Amino acid sequence: MVKLSPEEYVETLRQPRRLVYANGQLVEDLTQHPLTACVVRAMARSYEMEADPAYRGLLTAKSSLTGREVSRGIHIFRSIEDLCKRVDMGLAYAREFGTCYYSCPGCDALNALAATTWEMDRELGTDYHSRLKAFIKELEDRDFRCSGAVTDAKGDRSLRPPQQPDVYLRVVEERSDGIVIRGCKVSQSGAWANHYHIIVPNVALREGEEKFALACAVPAGAEGVRYVCQFNFYSAYRLVAGREEVPNWPYGFRETCVILFDDVFVPWDHVFLYGEVNYVGKLVSRFANIHRMVCGGSCKAGFMDILIGAMALMADQLGTMRARHIRNFLARAMVMRNVLYACAKMAALEGREEPEGSGFYGPDVVYANTAKLLAADYFYEVVKYACDIAGGLVVTAPSLKDLESPDVGEQLKRYLKARAPAEERIKLAKFIQLWLMHAPATWHGAGPPEYEMVFLRRAIDLEPLTELAKKFLG
Amino acid sequence: MVKLSPEEYVETLRQPRRLVYANGQLVEDLTQHPLTACVVRAMARSYEMEADPAYRGLLTAKSSLTGREVSRGIHIFRSIEDLCKRVDMGLAYAREFGTCYYSCPGCDALNALAATTWEMDRELGTDYHSRLKAFIKELEDRDFRCSGAVTDAKGDRSLRPPQQPDVYLRVVEERSDGIVIRGCKVSQSGAWANHYHIIVPNVALREGEEKFALACAVPAGAEGVRYVCQFNFYSAYRLVAGREEVPNWPYGFRETCVILFDDVFVPWDHVFLYGEVNYVGKLVSRFANIHRMVCGGSCKAGFMDILIGAMALMADQLGTMRARHIRNFLARAMVMRNVLYACAKMAALEGREEPEGSGFYGPDVVYANTAKLLAADYFYEVVKYACDIAGGLVVTAPSLKDLESPDVGEQLKRYLKARAPAEERIKLAKFIQLWLMHAPATWHGAGPPEYEMVFLRRAIDLEPLTELAKKFLG
Amino acid sequence: MVKLSPEEYVETLRQPRRLVYANGQLVEDLTQHPLTACVVRAMARSYEMEADPAYRGLLTAKSSLTGREVSRGIHIFRSIEDLCKRVDMGLAYAREFGTCYYSCPGCDALNALAATTWEMDRELGTDYHSRLKAFIKELEDRDFRCSGAVTDAKGDRSLRPPQQPDVYLRVVEERSDGIVIRGCKVSQSGAWANHYHIIVPNVALREGEEKFALACAVPAGAEGVRYVCQFNFYSAYRLVAGREEVPNWPYGFRETCVILFDDVFVPWDHVFLYGEVNYVGKLVSRFANIHRMVCGGSCKAGFMDILIGAMALMADQLGTMRARHIRNFLARAMVMRNVLYACAKMAALEGREEPEGSGFYGPDVVYANTAKLLAADYFYEVVKYACDIAGGLVVTAPSLKDLESPDVGEQLKRYLKARAPAEERIKLAKFIQLWLMHAPATWHGAGPPEYEMVFLRRAIDLEPLTELAKKFLG
Amino acid sequence: MVKLSPEEYVETLRQPRRLVYANGQLVEDLTQHPLTACVVRAMARSYEMEADPAYRGLLTAKSSLTGREVSRGIHIFRSIEDLCKRVDMGLAYAREFGTCYYSCPGCDALNALAATTWEMDRELGTDYHSRLKAFIKELEDRDFRCSGAVTDAKGDRSLRPPQQPDVYLRVVEERSDGIVIRGCKVSQSGAWANHYHIIVPNVALREGEEKFALACAVPAGAEGVRYVCQFNFYSAYRLVAGREEVPNWPYGFRETCVILFDDVFVPWDHVFLYGEVNYVGKLVSRFANIHRMVCGGSCKAGFMDILIGAMALMADQLGTMRARHIRNFLARAMVMRNVLYACAKMAALEGREEPEGSGFYGPDVVYANTAKLLAADYFYEVVKYACDIAGGLVVTAPSLKDLESPDVGEQLKRYLKARAPAEERIKLAKFIQLWLMHAPATWHGAGPPEYEMVFLRRAIDLEPLTELAKKFLG
Repeated sequence: MVKLSPEEYVETLRQPRRLVYANGQLVEDLTQHPLTACVVRAMARSYEMEADPAYRGLLTAKSSLTGREVSRGIHIFRSIEDLCKRVDMGLAYAREFGTCYYSCPGCDALNALAATTWEMDRELGTDYHSRLKAFIKELEDRDFRCSGAVTDAKGDRSLRPPQQPDVYLRVVEERSDGIVIRGCKVSQSGAWANHYHIIVPNVALREGEEKFALACAVPAGAEGVRYVCQFNFYSAYRLVAGREEVPNWPYGFRETCVILFDDVFVPWDHVFLYGEVNYVGKLVSRFANIHRMVCGGSCKAGFMDILIGAMALMADQLGTMRARHIRNFLARAMVMRNVLYACAKMAALEGREEPEGSGFYGPDVVYANTAKLLAADYFYEVVKYACDIAGGLVVTAPSLKDLESPDVGEQLKRYLKARAPAEERIKLAKFIQLWLMHAPATWHGAGPPEYEMVFLRRAIDLEPLTELAKKFLG
Repeated sequence: MVKLSPEEYVETLRQPRRLVYANGQLVEDLTQHPLTACVVRAMARSYEMEADPAYRGLLTAKSSLTGREVSRGIHIFRSIEDLCKRVDMGLAYAREFGTCYYSCPGCDALNALAATTWEMDRELGTDYHSRLKAFIKELEDRDFRCSGAVTDAKGDRSLRPPQQPDVYLRVVEERSDGIVIRGCKVSQSGAWANHYHIIVPNVALREGEEKFALACAVPAGAEGVRYVCQFNFYSAYRLVAGREEVPNWPYGFRETCVILFDDVFVPWDHVFLYGEVNYVGKLVSRFANIHRMVCGGSCKAGFMDILIGAMALMADQLGTMRARHIRNFLARAMVMRNVLYACAKMAALEGREEPEGSGFYGPDVVYANTAKLLAADYFYEVVKYACDIAGGLVVTAPSLKDLESPDVGEQLKRYLKARAPAEERIKLAKFIQLWLMHAPATWHGAGPPEYEMVFLRRAIDLEPLTELAKKFLG
Repeated sequence: MVKLSPEEYVETLRQPRRLVYANGQLVEDLTQHPLTACVVRAMARSYEMEADPAYRGLLTAKSSLTGREVSRGIHIFRSIEDLCKRVDMGLAYAREFGTCYYSCPGCDALNALAATTWEMDRELGTDYHSRLKAFIKELEDRDFRCSGAVTDAKGDRSLRPPQQPDVYLRVVEERSDGIVIRGCKVSQSGAWANHYHIIVPNVALREGEEKFALACAVPAGAEGVRYVCQFNFYSAYRLVAGREEVPNWPYGFRETCVILFDDVFVPWDHVFLYGEVNYVGKLVSRFANIHRMVCGGSCKAGFMDILIGAMALMADQLGTMRARHIRNFLARAMVMRNVLYACAKMAALEGREEPEGSGFYGPDVVYANTAKLLAADYFYEVVKYACDIAGGLVVTAPSLKDLESPDVGEQLKRYLKARAPAEERIKLAKFIQLWLMHAPATWHGAGPPEYEMVFLRRAIDLEPLTELAKKFLG
Repeated sequence: MVKLSPEEYVETLRQPRRLVYANGQLVEDLTQHPLTACVVRAMARSYEMEADPAYRGLLTAKSSLTGREVSRGIHIFRSIEDLCKRVDMGLAYAREFGTCYYSCPGCDALNALAATTWEMDRELGTDYHSRLKAFIKELEDRDFRCSGAVTDAKGDRSLRPPQQPDVYLRVVEERSDGIVIRGCKVSQSGAWANHYHIIVPNVALREGEEKFALACAVPAGAEGVRYVCQFNFYSAYRLVAGREEVPNWPYGFRETCVILFDDVFVPWDHVFLYGEVNYVGKLVSRFANIHRMVCGGSCKAGFMDILIGAMALMADQLGTMRARHIRNFLARAMVMRNVLYACAKMAALEGREEPEGSGFYGPDVVYANTAKLLAADYFYEVVKYACDIAGGLVVTAPSLKDLESPDVGEQLKRYLKARAPAEERIKLAKFIQLWLMHAPATWHGAGPPEYEMVFLRRAIDLEPLTELAKKFLG
């Protein structure tokens, strides 16, 4: 077993080489390109944090497989305490990076697979769970991390996968030694900076859709795998603006990519589900529940911590801290932050063994989905407050380069200062602009609200409540 | 030490006699009058529940004074666990009664006093805390309960108490053996069905307002004490309608009263604060925080459990359970119920020793106030859903007596039935009508939202968050 | 042609006698019983207002049939101006009565019938429209008013009418001279105080449901017709409390009833649709659109005028008028009131000839449904604000009889006064309590929000907007 | 009098030359630079539209000064109809440009000045109004347009202008022939593409703040005037991305700038207010009311028309148009769009002569402020829906250049297609991303919600409503 230093981690990205494209070009050096270096930096920092005694036991865990102290990012939950720690790990990374921890969905996909493969082995006599355990041991041995490859492109939502096979990742060939897969996964946060992609289906499947019923691990940079970076307005800003004025330059903004799989071979020992359409719904749900607890709950609480801090700084700079409506914005933002954290925590505290007898633990479904449901709306709401406090400059501020212009710089500095220099005010405004971009990303990450409503409509147990009500009706 | 049986409890109400007025008349027998019997019934049932092994440890606690097992309603919190149990006691009673547990504010007032008198004795050398301990021991000895007498009439809110002394309870005479108080407390849920009223101030006070700075215990039914029942639309319904059709006939609807104090003498050993205006703010805040945790959090979650149950029953009766918007109403209601409970629970879990060194525990201020803040809006929201599901009959249903009318009864039964008989449908609609009445009561109980905003604006700690944000701004 | 004086109007109620039941009893004198007198009073007052020159042209209109000046309550819209006047008539009555104008749905049902019978005659060669014109002329001649009998009991919503015939009003016999109908209509505001009931179906119908496809006029008090009054908490209060303390004693609270039809004969010339299931949807929609414009829009604006006035009075009494959050409540309430009125007005202003060529006018569907959709939520919201401003006394105030009690009256008066005497404060609080009861009634009147959403999902015309968007996409 | 053709208009921008800086550089050719050409294009198009008979009478008006047909952008309102046309002009330009009409605030500032200078001349005997009329005649003669220069940098909001003179535009010298001004105005949409800047104060002023009490006209490109473009994420995208993939390439996104005034001389005949601090509040309010009617009301309705169209296109492309929640999003968005338009229209319809006797017209204050108040929240809400419908690709889509990459282009096209080609889907997603950026801009344009609340708290007239309420209280 090794423990990778940040530098050693960066080395692991060189072999196999990840073919990453950004804005139409192959990225030569992932550690240097403005759109990729931030991902590497975040992952390297996560290795550093894990080695920091201050985070021991939070970002690391005792492996139930080997008893070794391993990264909590590849740890399988075996108790309520593990669930609580997962929640607080989400909070810690969110506050550290101001963006994704890029092994977060991978961790949750491993956990969903642990429960589901255990169940399949028991019920179907397969050996998926043994394979998974061996795979996790390999991860531990090499201190490797996984991305969770969940989101299919999905194309026309009114069609089933077999009606439009291109837009769902699928098996195109079955061999004696493994399978060959083709297609893509989209909106993959920092996938290539991990060592494996844990592929799981995105939707529940039916009989006749076996080719799409697939869970497996594929090494990052494997033969046939390529990555195409997102390219949004902020991406352009990273390319054009000075490092100084790019908000969260070090870690960036949920740097996702499309992963293309061009007939990629996966050996059987890395296949954890194939064809068992009846177990896909459970696998998808388990992943969703865990991920919504963290991604909707504590991670967004962590983001809000930063954003509320930025709001308070801005109010200080503009001398508006004593205005009643500004104080209300701050208090309301904190209320929302706390509700998200409370729901995540309750999802963990009211978690249970899942499936029964397995020794694995999963969160309470209602609380987990509530966390994500509310996060979607709350995030927009807090962003709205932040942009209110920032004033129009949140989108109308000039460039910091203008502040350095010999023609107009001096005037801009004089006129745009508040209780802080113009430069700080503008940087803070642009930082808040970045959080605006997060709002739709937060909405969709771990599934948009209608998905949580589907779970909630199904999961709420009305019967004990109708019994209770009947007591009052004689 | 005695443990009162329900019957023994009822006996305690006879001596001293409580002079209770309802709709202009003195109530002859509190156990029989439609507006008072429900209060007696609820309290008697609480004694019964405490004796039930199923509730031991939840509704009872080990006294830290005497080591005896006592009612949790008079227990002082000495741990996070105590706070958690207080939360769950609130839930249990709310679900049992569908209305107030009438010793609830009393419990919270005792706890606020425990912390504040301890602090005063330490800082001022007073002996308030010793008096309080002796008083609590008396409560334990006799198995007595307390109401919390907090809300002043307040009159013109733009004036301070000395400018309108009548509308704040105050000391009118100081004697060697005690004090004489005059005035009233309003919106007092089931006060007279307790054994003592724990009087605490309602607002923070300033120098010059010493006469209003008063905390003490007054026996229910004491010389000079009289009670006037609330009389709202539901009260009238209790008087007019048949028992069958009065929703929650057994326990009623937050049966409050005005307590009038006409120059009531209080001996010194029952005085726990008098004149120390600087401690009033703390006392008021401590009471508010505890009460908002329970009254805003778990109690309202309990009410919602019943109401959601009623909604589900109604949807079943009307065959609308499969309609998407109805399912959404149910899911959204459950989300709100759970958020309230989560906030109450977190307020307890993140509670702390208060004041430091005292051994007493208080809830997290932000979570406690969040629970109440959200409860106010959420309750209206859930009521709105419930009334939607119930249809127009929620206010337009005829009387059950009409269903028994030889002229029109048969037709009404035939036409107004759904998947349940007309009678059940109407009873359920009227039950939901009752919850509508609860909405403004829930809003104001433990203080309306603007009060919580005052606490939240003050309590949120922005500094760690601005520090965090600064890390991202270089 | 006659113009009835208020007294003459009251006389018209005696013959045929209306058999009205309230709380299990037949009402002896409709002009005296606390639950019915208020309805008579409102209708009588409407006759008085129509005769008042100040209201001429608003509450009266020039008949397009006869050129005579008639009540606008039986007038058919023939212009945008007529629609605008209908909107302002709704506002005027709402502000006058603080409750329903009991011929309001009747007016809208007549208008929906005018358009639909015209269309049927043209398309099917029926003579429904001629019958309707003759009927309206009769109304004009006798200065009569109509209730609109729309809402069926509906029972199990998952079943169609033929599966549960009892809960939809239907034809049980067809005769040479007319039809015989059986069943009931529920939630009928002040029906018996009109002269005719305009029966229209409540839901769109399909082939095979011809017996339920029925529009006709039935004289109030006709053979076989009986009425059963609603009996809610406020009804009980009207029975028990002194006239002084019953909020809106003169006009009451949407005094609805169930109308029972026990095999009532309707001659052909009063039948305006029978069996033409394909026209039912249109008829229902036209009624809904008109009624939502007024009932959701201007009528609720009128209610809010009164309620906002009550809020302001209460804030004055309590000295809270300068508090920021109170001012915000008032401003927000006014915003909502104005939005409702604006939507009603725009529904009228953007109305159109309907059907084309008919000379009749109907409102814009989107604005009309928007008015009602928003009214449902807004009304709860404003009530919430009002109850906030009123304080807990909104449900916890004692009876005015207590204020007159020799034992406790003086104290109550002293302690409960604010900047107004205790009596006024309590009356105002109880007045606000009444508006709370209106909230679910407003929600359901003219159809609950999901009904408007059905209309809106269908009515919005996306094509011009997608064309517009395409321009921006090249 | 001339009527400029689009080409002639572009010529007018060359003399005097506007010194415009973008991202630290002086822009060489305003008609070519990606950050400025879009502004020129929009203004040129507006000249073209004015000449189009289809828009005659909407975008043009009959001058009350000269009787000539002039641009409505420099027209003074003299009737309710003028107000209504102003509303619909806002709608038309918003739908045409998908961004600002850059003479919009200028038009409103001229109108606010017309009323206020008229009032000052009458009350103070000044000749401001005559100057303004002469100036407007010059505008008509030359077919010139104005920007409205309102927003000061404001710095520390807790300080008054004299405490921080740099951050409010002010007079630094008074000469016999005019005044010299110094400072800046921020968030100035397309200012330099107009011919004059109409400077008005941003906040009400007090005695002692005369130097800041200033309204005047300054020629664009005048000596001492310089412009610094906003530089936000979208600006960077315009620089980096291919024209094809820049959403709204032709007209861009509210391209604001900072206008720097370095000791700019203004002759007296272009000064319309100087030193009269008592009239500043009125001037500011009048501007705000007019601008909120249009900018908050119809302009945002126009934006929403485009955005709802985009939502519908996206739902079509993704095959989600039949999903209930998607239909609800569309219907709700349309509801909000219509409410904004209704409030703008009502603000115009309920407008009045302002000041009395002047012959000038201003909108209803409550409706105008309501339009803007609601627009702020509604816009975020609709953007939220749009981003929901667009899915995660709204921020995670790759570049269109990636679609052309020989390495990965073919796969991306295959996998990312839906019912439309991948390229269209991505362009549409990015178009929606642009509307996200509009949300905070819409919030602040014409003043953030708290400003409207200030106006509303002040403007609502409670007295008639309290009188109304009293009628119900006896």
